[in-house]
Amino acid sequence: MSSSFRIHGLVAATHTPFHADGSLNLSIVQQQFAMLHSDGVRYAFIGGTTGESSSLTLDERLQLADRWSRVVRGTDLQLIVHVGSNCLDDSVSLAKQAQQLGVAAVSAVAPSYFKPGNVQTLVESMSKIASAAPELPFYYYEIPTMTGINIWPSEFLEAATPRIPNLSGIKFTSSNLMEYQLCRRHSNSKFDIPFGFDEMLLPALSLGAIGAVGSSYNFAAPIYRRVMQAFAVNDLQAARDEQMRAVRLIKLLASYGYMAAAKTVMKLRGVDVGPPRLPIAGLTNDQQAELHRDLDQMGFFSWL
Amino acid sequence: MSSSFRIHGLVAATHTPFHADGSLNLSIVQQQFAMLHSDGVRYAFIGGTTGESSSLTLDERLQLADRWSRVVRGTDLQLIVHVGSNCLDDSVSLAKQAQQLGVAAVSAVAPSYFKPGNVQTLVESMSKIASAAPELPFYYYEIPTMTGINIWPSEFLEAATPRIPNLSGIKFTSSNLMEYQLCRRHSNSKFDIPFGFDEMLLPALSLGAIGAVGSSYNFAAPIYRRVMQAFAVNDLQAARDEQMRAVRLIKLLASYGYMAAAKTVMKLRGVDVGPPRLPIAGLTNDQQAELHRDLDQMGFFSWL
Amino acid sequence: MSSSFRIHGLVAATHTPFHADGSLNLSIVQQQFAMLHSDGVRYAFIGGTTGESSSLTLDERLQLADRWSRVVRGTDLQLIVHVGSNCLDDSVSLAKQAQQLGVAAVSAVAPSYFKPGNVQTLVESMSKIASAAPELPFYYYEIPTMTGINIWPSEFLEAATPRIPNLSGIKFTSSNLMEYQLCRRHSNSKFDIPFGFDEMLLPALSLGAIGAVGSSYNFAAPIYRRVMQAFAVNDLQAARDEQMRAVRLIKLLASYGYMAAAKTVMKLRGVDVGPPRLPIAGLTNDQQAELHRDLDQMGFFSWL
Amino acid sequence: MSSSFRIHGLVAATHTPFHADGSLNLSIVQQQFAMLHSDGVRYAFIGGTTGESSSLTLDERLQLADRWSRVVRGTDLQLIVHVGSNCLDDSVSLAKQAQQLGVAAVSAVAPSYFKPGNVQTLVESMSKIASAAPELPFYYYEIPTMTGINIWPSEFLEAATPRIPNLSGIKFTSSNLMEYQLCRRHSNSKFDIPFGFDEMLLPALSLGAIGAVGSSYNFAAPIYRRVMQAFAVNDLQAARDEQMRAVRLIKLLASYGYMAAAKTVMKLRGVDVGPPRLPIAGLTNDQQAELHRDLDQMGFFSWL
Repeated sequence: MSSSFRIHGLVAATHTPFHADGSLNLSIVQQQFAMLHSDGVRYAFIGGTTGESSSLTLDERLQLADRWSRVVRGTDLQLIVHVGSNCLDDSVSLAKQAQQLGVAAVSAVAPSYFKPGNVQTLVESMSKIASAAPELPFYYYEIPTMTGINIWPSEFLEAATPRIPNLSGIKFTSSNLMEYQLCRRHSNSKFDIPFGFDEMLLPALSLGAIGAVGSSYNFAAPIYRRVMQAFAVNDLQAARDEQMRAVRLIKLLASYGYMAAAKTVMKLRGVDVGPPRLPIAGLTNDQQAELHRDLDQMGFFSWL
Repeated sequence: MSSSFRIHGLVAATHTPFHADGSLNLSIVQQQFAMLHSDGVRYAFIGGTTGESSSLTLDERLQLADRWSRVVRGTDLQLIVHVGSNCLDDSVSLAKQAQQLGVAAVSAVAPSYFKPGNVQTLVESMSKIASAAPELPFYYYEIPTMTGINIWPSEFLEAATPRIPNLSGIKFTSSNLMEYQLCRRHSNSKFDIPFGFDEMLLPALSLGAIGAVGSSYNFAAPIYRRVMQAFAVNDLQAARDEQMRAVRLIKLLASYGYMAAAKTVMKLRGVDVGPPRLPIAGLTNDQQAELHRDLDQMGFFSWL
Repeated sequence: MSSSFRIHGLVAATHTPFHADGSLNLSIVQQQFAMLHSDGVRYAFIGGTTGESSSLTLDERLQLADRWSRVVRGTDLQLIVHVGSNCLDDSVSLAKQAQQLGVAAVSAVAPSYFKPGNVQTLVESMSKIASAAPELPFYYYEIPTMTGINIWPSEFLEAATPRIPNLSGIKFTSSNLMEYQLCRRHSNSKFDIPFGFDEMLLPALSLGAIGAVGSSYNFAAPIYRRVMQAFAVNDLQAARDEQMRAVRLIKLLASYGYMAAAKTVMKLRGVDVGPPRLPIAGLTNDQQAELHRDLDQMGFFSWL
Repeated sequence: MSSSFRIHGLVAATHTPFHADGSLNLSIVQQQFAMLHSDGVRYAFIGGTTGESSSLTLDERLQLADRWSRVVRGTDLQLIVHVGSNCLDDSVSLAKQAQQLGVAAVSAVAPSYFKPGNVQTLVESMSKIASAAPELPFYYYEIPTMTGINIWPSEFLEAATPRIPNLSGIKFTSSNLMEYQLCRRHSNSKFDIPFGFDEMLLPALSLGAIGAVGSSYNFAAPIYRRVMQAFAVNDLQAARDEQMRAVRLIKLLASYGYMAAAKTVMKLRGVDVGPPRLPIAGLTNDQQAELHRDLDQMGFFSWL
């Protein structure tokens, strides 16, 4: 149990690498690690939304976590393993493995085909998972745009406090910054609330965020590190300019379909994580070439 | 391949039976079969929404389908196995098993954590599944209230026709009866469109529905059979009265939480399928007793 | 007060006629009346959604109702005047006028910029309007796709019964046919529940609907009358075929933007109600010509 | 025309004062002005969402704007008059009056019963209004939680630039801070983008916001002025603490129904703006007393 666990700085929500035929390509994990290390990123979030965990079999998720834990052994990169699933029994299996692997923390999105009917049922669902890795800090993963769940995260903290002893906080992927403040200040700021929208990092920093989890930290971490550095020395204009670069990057990727485009950017940076799996459509070769040109014109590669 | 497959009458979307502790209780399947047989229901839909398939492990889903196929062997009850999942590779495994088991048909809901971005991607996703059981009729399972997917099912039929040779039709769980008509009439009424809202069976019959899939056909089939019989002989007042009984039943169950209450009704009818799994909360003993009284007062048991 | 008022048959939700420049063109009302009369439609709903009432000034709404009441004087066409508005004081003014004009009934959609927070506030809002025309039957106008209000209409009836003595029923524009049944059967079928989705008329008939309000009854009433006639003599196949024509018509109009296309159809039938007002964009001349061709090809004009 | 108009600091989105019976009580406007003046607020937004403009008759809106313009004459409080309405002709009347009154700017929310179908139609709708007050800066009022309109405001700016010469910017009431950045930076930061969520003022400041429009600036401006002052001198901890007070205040008011509770706070601060109009329910006397106690306990009155 470790309620004093705190995530400082950037957490890359890593892609799951596939071969061109869609099969798992674990040999790439080493390269993903190397790029994060080289970009100064010290945490990796494994098998989350960006990692397409909902498109992986349980066995693949176990293999993926296992590989990452072996790759990072002896390094200072810490792992937070995502174990959320519609099937809580799968989540339990993943949480048990995570504890055995000795990773830094686990996190889980709520089931969303069936949505928890109220905050108590949400807490019971998360408690089942968290209690399967009782020695690890647990992060509830709030992301209403994906789940469609409308339970205030601050109410989750309130109801979960007596039920989940290893609750460390919330991976907060929502633009509701009123709730963000309520979560950060809950119980005398007891909880760790890493922020999940890359394009809103600077606003989160203004509210006191110390950690952030996101997919573009895989391939554009230098931009965000400059946001954080400029913010730290009160150079807000520089922070805004860097944040605006991130916004332009994300807007561009979104115009191609964010998930598929982000995997293409990884490839362009030399780490071929392959295409996404269905139900996400990959980019065609033509689209990839066009995206490459757009990134060039924007100056993206000079920002790294 | 069997595009002329047609579902006639009621299909019970069966519950997955659990022990009190939530573990799979396959010994109950025999009793579920017996009740359906006794109620004159000739099709069972296995592991769908009612079957809480999204809360089952892949292994459990395989076991469940296997058990049902053994239980119904030599009887006239036909199985339609639901194989949908956020993970299409799991769907493929389930579809392959279904074909091996020689069930009547397979059906799949679309992935919904990631939602297909357009009709083509939806078709590619379903094609991947359908092609894993090429000798079985395939039903796309439309249920926008659960998936949040807003792709017209009639457009799915249009785009899927050249891509999914074993496409048999759509399990249509939506109140959009304009789309229902468009689907039924598509390609000279080539497709089979069983209807999925029990509380709207009579309206669907008026439009020509010949089959219907639903959860309350597990425990209240006699009511619906009378709806169909009265409709068949143009006794609309009787059909409406019976349909209204179904509406009152469903409204009552919904006031307790439909999924959990429906499992309680199974128990009250003598087939203990256990509680639901999280993230669906079960009824307390007090709630179950109260529901029993409400059903009594309503006259439910006399309607069977 | 007239709780026994019942609407039988089709109610045309009339367009508000504009000149090409968007100004009110009341001279067309006489032609609208003549077409309804000739098509056998015996009720007109004035200034509803189809009538773009939310785009009219209060003074224009008063003029419109006044003109219709003068046009139909001495005929057997009955008027139901829509008085709903975000501004309840405007609704009160309109309701008072309606009673003075001696129309058959009034109806009101709920305010939707601010949405009533619960059923009691909805009832208070409707009560304020209904009590301004206490001698006229009042219809609550349920149309959640436009208002975004998610209060069950059956709960509205329950809460409104003691508060709105002249409540006659609900103009039910929703595909939730479970609620439709609950409303029809409420308080021993005390209320009149005309149905509002033209493309689902036949299903509503199957549930006992006796009246229907819709925009395509302005220009395609013969099709729907045949639906009703075929249904009345239990010729369901003919009823379905006619209903399917309506579905194809509505699908076609929707592909152009339903509201603007419907006004074009009026023009093609010889009654030039002009373009819609912003924020609804009108069809260009080219689009109007193309729609004309599409209608011809479909056989629309031969269906009348 | 005045594209260089910029709003600096807080804009109070003023309440419309009513008598206890709901009728307009313009005599209170003088007191509202006095409180804003005393709290150091230099802009008032008249007849917006907080002002319940959608519940006012056109005549009342004209009277309200007229009264405010007379009250502020000769003072340094500037008026921005909201002229949005479902009825664009009403908006035009209001915009013409605003120009005649010589107020600082006009603003309009988009019609939302009918929602503009695309960005061009939205621009045409806003252009119609803006061109009725061509000498005043025009602000498009973005507030998707109320309107349900999902057109990116940055796309609005793009499409509106050639069509609305007096476009000054956007009153941006959305938590989408990616869009906020895109709007601020659009066309070399040509536009003024005052921010509309009081509870997220500090994050907006971090992105460079220089103005903010909100309802709690009516009665809690000192808190927000301290947010801005602390931010200006890089005392982020103080800024966060003050912002958190605002969050706690708003959370409390929301628990009573924000709109009604906010009017009660005005009364508690000595300016009786009366109850809200239906469809917003007012607080009972008991609720008002309880809110008073809650505010006391929270320390609200000591924060002013």
